[in-house]
Parts: sequence; C-alpha cells; structure tokens
Amino acid sequence: MSNLRKIGEFGLIERMVKKIAVDKSVIQGIGDDTAVLPYTKESYLLFTTDMLIEGVHFSRQEATFTQIGRKALAVNISDIAAMGGVPKYAVVSLGLPRGLCLRAVDDIMRGINTLAQEYGLNIVGGDTVRSSKITLCITLLGQVKKTNLTLRSRAGLGDLIFVTGSLGGSRNLKQFNFFPRVAEAQQIIKKFKPSAMIDLSDGLASDLERIAQSSKVGAVIFEQLIPVSRGATLNQALFQGEDFELLFTVPLSSVRRLHKKSAKFTISCIGKVVERKKGLQLIDNKARIERLKQKGFRHF
Amino acid sequence: MSNLRKIGEFGLIERMVKKIAVDKSVIQGIGDDTAVLPYTKESYLLFTTDMLIEGVHFSRQEATFTQIGRKALAVNISDIAAMGGVPKYAVVSLGLPRGLCLRAVDDIMRGINTLAQEYGLNIVGGDTVRSSKITLCITLLGQVKKTNLTLRSRAGLGDLIFVTGSLGGSRNLKQFNFFPRVAEAQQIIKKFKPSAMIDLSDGLASDLERIAQSSKVGAVIFEQLIPVSRGATLNQALFQGEDFELLFTVPLSSVRRLHKKSAKFTISCIGKVVERKKGLQLIDNKARIERLKQKGFRHF
Repeated sequence: MSNLRKIGEFGLIERMVKKIAVDKSVIQGIGDDTAVLPYTKESYLLFTTDMLIEGVHFSRQEATFTQIGRKALAVNISDIAAMGGVPKYAVVSLGLPRGLCLRAVDDIMRGINTLAQEYGLNIVGGDTVRSSKITLCITLLGQVKKTNLTLRSRAGLGDLIFVTGSLGGSRNLKQFNFFPRVAEAQQIIKKFKPSAMIDLSDGLASDLERIAQSSKVGAVIFEQLIPVSRGATLNQALFQGEDFELLFTVPLSSVRRLHKKSAKFTISCIGKVVERKKGLQLIDNKARIERLKQKGFRHF
Repeated sequence: MSNLRKIGEFGLIERMVKKIAVDKSVIQGIGDDTAVLPYTKESYLLFTTDMLIEGVHFSRQEATFTQIGRKALAVNISDIAAMGGVPKYAVVSLGLPRGLCLRAVDDIMRGINTLAQEYGLNIVGGDTVRSSKITLCITLLGQVKKTNLTLRSRAGLGDLIFVTGSLGGSRNLKQFNFFPRVAEAQQIIKKFKPSAMIDLSDGLASDLERIAQSSKVGAVIFEQLIPVSRGATLNQALFQGEDFELLFTVPLSSVRRLHKKSAKFTISCIGKVVERKKGLQLIDNKARIERLKQKGFRHF
C-alpha cells in the first residue's frame, strides 16, 4: 500500500488540494504562503498556520525553550511578510509532556510573547494539551493593503529574481534567531512592486520552484550572484532552508526604481525568469548549465 | 521543580494569561470559547484553535480516520457556535507518521471536508509535517453579528441555567459523531437572548464552573432536572465531557420567550445562577446539597 514516504510533502499537498472546494469569497486558498480572505474595503485578511514538533523541527539540545517558542511564531510572521502584510493576531496551541517543568513552559511563552511584542501582534487564544513530544501550532492573522498583496503566481517572463540577506548555514546559526522580514517586505513593495514573493523556508531551490510552478515559468540563476553566507557552501544556500529571507521577482520596467544604496538591508539580483519548459537552471562559475534538483528537507 | 502535573490545565492557562498583554483592538482575548476581533461594521471575527493528538484524544482502535478528521473540525465549530457565530474559514495542520498509508490521510481529509461542506465553511490552508503520533490542529474563523455575541462572562444572579440535548456517555458513543450546535445556538439567541453560553467539552461541572468563574457567580443545579443520556450515569453527565451540547443562562425576564414546543431540539432547565460565594451546588434527588467537585478530564 502506498504511504507518505512515496509521495512526499508536495505530493501530499497536491493530493489534498484536489479534493477541497472553496467558495468564491476566498481570494487565495491553499497554494501560497498564507490564505487571502475578504476583510476591509482597502485590505485583505491573511490567515496562516505552522506546526513545529520536537524531534522533527527542533531538539532540546540545539535550542533553548525560549528559542523554540520564538521560532514557532517567527515562521508564521515570515509567511505574512511574504504576502506583503503585517501580523495582527495569533492563537497558540501547545502540546506539552506531563512531566515538563513549569520553567520550560514559561520560557516557551516568553519566546512567543517577546517576539509578539516586537512585531506588534496580539496573542488572543490557544489550546493546551498533553503530548509526548513538545508540539507548537501557531496560527496567525495578518492584514495587507489590497494594493500590496504579493502572490507567488504572478512572476512574468523576463522578470529579474532577487533575494534579501545571505543564504545557507542557517540550520546551525540563524534558524532560531532570524527576524522575519516584515519591514523589508514593505520597503520592497513600496520601492519596486514585485510581481511575486515567497519566504525562503525550505531552501532557494525548493522555494524558487514554488514560484515557478505557481507562475508557470522557469528560472535561471547564477552561482556567482548567490549571496552565500560566510562559512556556508553553495549547496547549503541552495538546498538547506531555514533562511527566512525573501525571494522575489521584479518586472524589468520596475527594476530602475531599485535604489540599492538607499535600502537598509542587502538585496541581491540572482537571476531571471524564463519559460516554464526550461525548468530551473543554475549557471555555475564556469558558465556551465546545471539543472537545479529539488533536495530540500523531506518530511516524509 | 514544579511541573505541569501539579498545576493542571486550568492553572497553566491562568499562568500564561497573566503574562500576555493585548491591545485595545481585541474585544475578547484568552478566556472564552473563541477570541473576538474587529471585523465588519455589524459583525465580529471569531478565532479559535484546537489540537487533537493520537493517544491522548483518540486512538486508532476507537475511531476511524474519517471520524478523527471530522472530530478535529467539529470541536472547533462547536466553539464558534457557543459564541453565537457561524464558521467561515479553516486552516488545517496535520502531523503524520512517515509510514502512514495514503488511504488514512485521504480518510482524515474526507472527514474534515465532508463536515466543512455540511457547515458551509472553506478549508483555505494548512501545514503538513512528520510526527510520530497523528496530530491535528485546526484553526477556525467565524463570524458573529455584534448583537448575537454571547460571552461566558455575562451570567447574572437569578438567571436560569439550560442545556441542549442529553449528557453523559459520549466518550463511548457521541464524541466522534456529534453535530456542532450552530443552528441551535442561532435559535436560542433569537428566542431568548442568553446572558452567557459555552459548549460542553469537558463535562457539565467543569464548563459550568467556567461560566461561574468568568461571570463571578455561583450556580445551583438539580439532579432531577439533568437530562442524562440513556444508558449513562449522573456522574458521566456531570464529569465526563465530550457532549458538545450548549450550556447557557437566561435572565428571568427573557424566559417567558421560551417556546419549548416550537424548538426542534431538546432544551432542559437544570438550575439557576446564585452568588459566587455559594460556589457550584448539586441538589440531589433527596434534596441534599452537594458541592460539585471538578473532576473532568485532566491533561496534566
């Protein structure tokens, strides 16, 4: 009998989506960083959830309880940022082992609360249940001005491809301490109206494929242009994930608006959007063309 | 060192709430069946989450995968109903064992989707991760007319106490097949403006205490009036939980509006609201007064 290992996470999601019908009030359902729903006259409601489980996403050896709580919220904020929105309200479900000391629970909540305050969002509810593994499921509501909404599916032929910050090595260093790029996304949108945007959670190769697939395009990126983090390898930058930087595409007509010097954060142009049939290509430092494989973190 | 077992779930929630600050846009944060947030001119947004874990909330022996999926959504719909609202949008996070067969995943999703369609709500997003235990965390958005919002905290001295349906024995029979009381709640609100309402998830004694504590009142209920399910005991009706009926209070002035005969479902008056210092009392069939103990399901 077929099991999850065979079809993987992408296959699983595709399988589930086929069977789900939504009504026409839904502006964007499954298939982007967040769902997009009606809200006010000038804005949409963003709705997103992420589950983190001990032994899969983190271990007590590699992170403090405060970092674990912080990260569970940060990954959700990052999804809101990638849509062009700001986070507003969160509910927190915690699965906790019976024998866990109260201090650990306090630390998890401190990690969540501190970040919530830094990003101006409210914790408004949740659930606490017993669980053999520490399990955090945070669901976040955000708000985005209609004119700022940036989906994955609008990258156009010839658009240039950009990333913020540097990539790779985050599984050791940055994954528990990154700052979701909310303010950066706002500046990017204001300065050069990106056609598509996503946050880098599963690795550049995987997340670029998500934009490519949604937008029905291909992409060429250049090894020489990829901002690899100090101490990291190209492979880590391409496949390791957990960078939580922004990957976005910009129509050529808007690129002239780019004021690199005026941005308070690093933006790198790494390639351009091409036809779908070309797939994802990496041009290495010797000008050889490689096909970019998908080998990010596999859940199943 | 102190651990969760010592303070229990109620103690844990109290501990966490103390440390959480929310801004004034939040109409109701932690402490009711759902959070209540600004939405349209005439309605509020309801926001609630529940986590169900294999081995804690269900086992593969006692329920089919379809029932497990169905229940994970149903408990959330029940919370929306208890606020006087209707369910609108859901996101679904699934933790799944790597070796789980695809048919099981399809069945879980069928349970969720079928109920979603019956209640007219949209599944708009989610997350799928690896987990040793099947873990479902569903978060639901609902909508409530401002005039229909029914909190836990407004029960008044002298109000009568009602429940829908019958109680007890649900851990064997009803817990996987109950229908959340959305339409019933709408009728109850229309017919006699309840002062407070909650859904019965943890047992009559526990959930009555939640209303009592939030409203700063006590309650007297009468053994003779409690609608015990056929085959169930009084103790099961009081302490077992998983009934997902509605418990609500009605000011005397509104009780006359009650048209028992016109309701298409059973409503029973079981007691009345008294002063806080009296606590929760049960008058048994021999007119003896018992103090109602809290002994619902303990997570920790």
